[in-house]
Amino acid sequence: MNPPRTDARRHHDPDVRGFASDNYAGAHPEVLAAITLANGGHQVAYGEDDYTENLQRIIRGHFGARAEAFPVFNGTGANVVALQAVTDRWGAVISAESAHINVDEGGAPERVGGLKLLTVPTPDGKLTPELIDRQAWGFEDEHRAMPQVVSITQNTELGTVYTPDEIRAICDHAHDLGMVVHLDGARIANAAASLDVSMRTFTNAAGVDLLSLGGTKNGALFGEAVVVLNPDVVRRMKHLRKLSMQLASKMRFVSVQLEALLAKDLWLRNARHANEMAQRLAEGVRSVHGVEILYPVQANAVFARLPHDVSERLQKRYRFYFWDETAGDVRWMCSFDTREEDVDGFLAALKEEMAR
Amino acid sequence: MNPPRTDARRHHDPDVRGFASDNYAGAHPEVLAAITLANGGHQVAYGEDDYTENLQRIIRGHFGARAEAFPVFNGTGANVVALQAVTDRWGAVISAESAHINVDEGGAPERVGGLKLLTVPTPDGKLTPELIDRQAWGFEDEHRAMPQVVSITQNTELGTVYTPDEIRAICDHAHDLGMVVHLDGARIANAAASLDVSMRTFTNAAGVDLLSLGGTKNGALFGEAVVVLNPDVVRRMKHLRKLSMQLASKMRFVSVQLEALLAKDLWLRNARHANEMAQRLAEGVRSVHGVEILYPVQANAVFARLPHDVSERLQKRYRFYFWDETAGDVRWMCSFDTREEDVDGFLAALKEEMAR
Amino acid sequence: MNPPRTDARRHHDPDVRGFASDNYAGAHPEVLAAITLANGGHQVAYGEDDYTENLQRIIRGHFGARAEAFPVFNGTGANVVALQAVTDRWGAVISAESAHINVDEGGAPERVGGLKLLTVPTPDGKLTPELIDRQAWGFEDEHRAMPQVVSITQNTELGTVYTPDEIRAICDHAHDLGMVVHLDGARIANAAASLDVSMRTFTNAAGVDLLSLGGTKNGALFGEAVVVLNPDVVRRMKHLRKLSMQLASKMRFVSVQLEALLAKDLWLRNARHANEMAQRLAEGVRSVHGVEILYPVQANAVFARLPHDVSERLQKRYRFYFWDETAGDVRWMCSFDTREEDVDGFLAALKEEMAR
Amino acid sequence: MNPPRTDARRHHDPDVRGFASDNYAGAHPEVLAAITLANGGHQVAYGEDDYTENLQRIIRGHFGARAEAFPVFNGTGANVVALQAVTDRWGAVISAESAHINVDEGGAPERVGGLKLLTVPTPDGKLTPELIDRQAWGFEDEHRAMPQVVSITQNTELGTVYTPDEIRAICDHAHDLGMVVHLDGARIANAAASLDVSMRTFTNAAGVDLLSLGGTKNGALFGEAVVVLNPDVVRRMKHLRKLSMQLASKMRFVSVQLEALLAKDLWLRNARHANEMAQRLAEGVRSVHGVEILYPVQANAVFARLPHDVSERLQKRYRFYFWDETAGDVRWMCSFDTREEDVDGFLAALKEEMAR
Repeated sequence: MNPPRTDARRHHDPDVRGFASDNYAGAHPEVLAAITLANGGHQVAYGEDDYTENLQRIIRGHFGARAEAFPVFNGTGANVVALQAVTDRWGAVISAESAHINVDEGGAPERVGGLKLLTVPTPDGKLTPELIDRQAWGFEDEHRAMPQVVSITQNTELGTVYTPDEIRAICDHAHDLGMVVHLDGARIANAAASLDVSMRTFTNAAGVDLLSLGGTKNGALFGEAVVVLNPDVVRRMKHLRKLSMQLASKMRFVSVQLEALLAKDLWLRNARHANEMAQRLAEGVRSVHGVEILYPVQANAVFARLPHDVSERLQKRYRFYFWDETAGDVRWMCSFDTREEDVDGFLAALKEEMAR
Repeated sequence: MNPPRTDARRHHDPDVRGFASDNYAGAHPEVLAAITLANGGHQVAYGEDDYTENLQRIIRGHFGARAEAFPVFNGTGANVVALQAVTDRWGAVISAESAHINVDEGGAPERVGGLKLLTVPTPDGKLTPELIDRQAWGFEDEHRAMPQVVSITQNTELGTVYTPDEIRAICDHAHDLGMVVHLDGARIANAAASLDVSMRTFTNAAGVDLLSLGGTKNGALFGEAVVVLNPDVVRRMKHLRKLSMQLASKMRFVSVQLEALLAKDLWLRNARHANEMAQRLAEGVRSVHGVEILYPVQANAVFARLPHDVSERLQKRYRFYFWDETAGDVRWMCSFDTREEDVDGFLAALKEEMAR
Repeated sequence: MNPPRTDARRHHDPDVRGFASDNYAGAHPEVLAAITLANGGHQVAYGEDDYTENLQRIIRGHFGARAEAFPVFNGTGANVVALQAVTDRWGAVISAESAHINVDEGGAPERVGGLKLLTVPTPDGKLTPELIDRQAWGFEDEHRAMPQVVSITQNTELGTVYTPDEIRAICDHAHDLGMVVHLDGARIANAAASLDVSMRTFTNAAGVDLLSLGGTKNGALFGEAVVVLNPDVVRRMKHLRKLSMQLASKMRFVSVQLEALLAKDLWLRNARHANEMAQRLAEGVRSVHGVEILYPVQANAVFARLPHDVSERLQKRYRFYFWDETAGDVRWMCSFDTREEDVDGFLAALKEEMAR
Repeated sequence: MNPPRTDARRHHDPDVRGFASDNYAGAHPEVLAAITLANGGHQVAYGEDDYTENLQRIIRGHFGARAEAFPVFNGTGANVVALQAVTDRWGAVISAESAHINVDEGGAPERVGGLKLLTVPTPDGKLTPELIDRQAWGFEDEHRAMPQVVSITQNTELGTVYTPDEIRAICDHAHDLGMVVHLDGARIANAAASLDVSMRTFTNAAGVDLLSLGGTKNGALFGEAVVVLNPDVVRRMKHLRKLSMQLASKMRFVSVQLEALLAKDLWLRNARHANEMAQRLAEGVRSVHGVEILYPVQANAVFARLPHDVSERLQKRYRFYFWDETAGDVRWMCSFDTREEDVDGFLAALKEEMAR
């Protein structure tokens, strides 16, 4: 079959894969097929289309009758829209120091939302009621930004996964203190696959009020959604999304990607595969003397410490990032398209470089 | 040929088209084909991929050696990133009262960028040096937001098109006053098609410093770019794009869409077709007694005034928007996928409803 | 009596007065005496002092039992705190184009509050229900900043005064549309003196929800207050004041100044005198051939049009500002300390310069 | 002598003093006398008055020929204006976790300035080059807010004082990394008194680029100044001050207060006295068994740890604040008007309550 006509050309080698990020992967072919299905003819812009309506049905299937999805462009957008929705002008967000909103969003929460982040160091990227209490005080003190929301990431930026009970304890505590709970689910599918439970089990069933649902890292071209689980705590989500510059005009193309992932089990298949590849990688790494794995490998990330020069040589063969360059810590990510042979090749290279 | 496997389903009738917006159209098939080409394997995220690099080459072909493109998600994002790039914390933007940044962006320029808009009423959506002078004063007065940039839209929100000379006069005037010029080119392709000149002729060749280049209305799924024409007036565009939540992780998929449009002539074919359909529509409308065309039809929009009840009946047959409901003004937009039979069917319906 | 010891020296001539602004005047001696009374010993900082508590009693005397005052530093601060209190993140403010918040606050409403101003040209600085309707629409449309508050200035920036009925009509209309009403009362005392009614008559009695109460132009060193008349429409004023950097640590010194003005009738004496001086000035100006008075002289301002060169010569003898330099329009302000001989001397100078 | 006429009354006992805050004190009588001198007649508003001009001369005397003062209302305002002046839209501020900008400004840096704070825990409120390095990285990484300024507080919020050499080391390090240095000098006079050097010695002589100069805690009614020491790193300070709502209309009254403090030695007399009272207090506390002093007492603050119930009983006799209520830590502040008998009375009360 000839490829369809286009003036664009292929500029890359589709057989090259690395371990830098699940954002380095492309889109799953079933997602592309879904976009083609949704194309053609006219659909109302800005979210009144049939695909976005159908997405609501799918989201209710996952999260229950009160859930509503607001598709957006990217993860930072999802987080900042969600956090604005549950904070007043005087509000603050309690999060782990390692949270994406704190370290990887270029200050967007502060700059776009005027949000103050109250952060807590954690051993493994996970908050607890006790850690939250280090910042959950001074609610009536106007000199202090008022803690109004706890934001947790599931799975965390360090590849660890909260149990449903751990999240329930956080939600109970936050609610007792009059706060709401946001879950940054950029990799929520990997967490569900890791726990082998539904997404609902550790979100609204555990007390989470709203979440950022990741599509991009799960196999979409682009596209995430703010999913409101507790509609009592938000107002005017559409206005917030628009003023935050996260409103897609041809929204059908965001919604249909999420449909391709979530209608049946593509979301889970992709996540499971990525997690399995991380387990295969971790298992191999454990047999390499001199390389230390830093956190429990519970999702699709492996964090390791190894000699700096080894990492530098290895980076010339496979793309990946230093996490803490001074300490020699690196992050290796697997994605839905990582193959067993990619992992095995990488492990062989690691061994070679460690042996030099 | 069987469609590729996906769990998503078609929820709409791809044969239905209206005149509500060029955002109601889907994506051009050649754009979808380009996305498929760019898929597979790993590419560096956040803009260091081969497609974004290649896009720079294409952009330089259109706009000259100094031009650089910064792909973003949507038009509001492009405008607000661009305007922030050329304003200080104390800066203001002079625009037409009818500008999209003033009336259709939910306050994003003010809220995200802290920008003050200094607007001027215009007869046809077009600024002139004289109209600019109504706001271009008080540069040293700290009580006034300092005018630092003039923002024009080409073609305008009212379907009118600046000549290159008109833009040159605006740029010369703005530069003389120490301001820079931004061009909101959400429909820049339609303007180029209308003028039958290159985009460069009425942008950097006329003095424009930076622009928002529209992809979505021109046949992309989503995706625009801030194109910096005069790099002397900006700094740290990548930081601005990130903190404005407009940084796509899998940027290759934005860039390859723009490649599909801009590498050869798809951008122009699409725009020319949309403009021709608007001419066909306008011609037909002129023959209908009782319907007044409001502005020169120079691009892909027809603005008309007709009895309110006629519009309401007609809206049940074809989607379109009131522009000024009190006055009875409506907007009819054509797009790259509008067919002659769509226009003819609409004209027949208009005549029927006018005759009732 | 010897002046008390201080290392500071007098650097100005206390006999020089002009017509530039009521901000050029100093403080009324009774205000200084009040500050001395409040000095000495310790008082709780940040507003829990006895003077601020007593101020609430005085404010309730003027505005009724539900009124509460939040002292702030300056007028821009009062306006931006008040407007933030009655807008959501997606909110917009309808005001006259000539409003201080639009033209004289350096973009602070937009930059500090993220507020979108929806402005309307007016003949005399005064809004009406009809003028409000030009912007009061699209409440549900996320592409438009949502009109949530109407802000009027009493007396206006053009020296005109709303009648209580005019304000009541505006409030009724705004409330019918679900909006609240803010009154910028930087010169509210002059308006009350002009109308010869209590401040309450044209504020809460007419439906105003909250106001900025001016102290500085009325004879204070500095200091204004946001006065909440309808507590149902605001929350967490103290947090808003703090985050807006308008919280005075030694607040007793703001509150006691407002006490000196408002406890009995100093506010009214000062305003009446300023208004009378403006009447004397206007009467004199009317007898000068070639000088046109532009707006009804209803408070302490006289706007006039006269030959540009005359104004320039006159400015060398008395300070005042051009309002619209191109048109030759000037503003002459009287204040609590303007003396009859100042007015008469100015009129003589005007006549001399007109005769040259 | 009869007090001058005013409708205000005295509402407090001027003989009551506590140890809660140097903001609980009133104004020094010489400051009030200075205000009286500056009163009367007209002076240009918004900073073009003779007192503000004279203040520049005084500031240059303290800080050298390049220094320029921008009077503002309060400390938060000074800090946020200063920090905005030396950051781009993408900028971040490195500070101690205990910095006032981080914990006591209600999120104003984030909300008004869009600033990201990158904080570091410290043992004693003091940054070092090593501690700065924990946040001074990723300058080119758009995902991270760009560190552009280091902000230190002198003396610190914990009552400790940097030596000039310590500040020089910080400035050298920051400058080497391309950052500028801001000094929050809300209590700069106490630091100078403690070190027994000029303010210049540990500011511009040590490399500090700009500072917030405190007046309120030093004996003013209100009023601080941003002092620019290195004019090469700022632009348009007046615009920034205005849009940050920190521009006083009758600025002569801010400037003359700073003149009263800074023209000769009132600033130093006040600070020395407060510091001496803190030393007297600390000396007495050291003799009380069961009360631990927490940080070196180098300025006008004593931090102590003692049984919670003792503090609660003591608070009924003298006002002061818990610093960390869980740990039982309290802060006792002395001010320019603290008398020896206040300290001695407090120590006696402390001993009594400890003995119960």
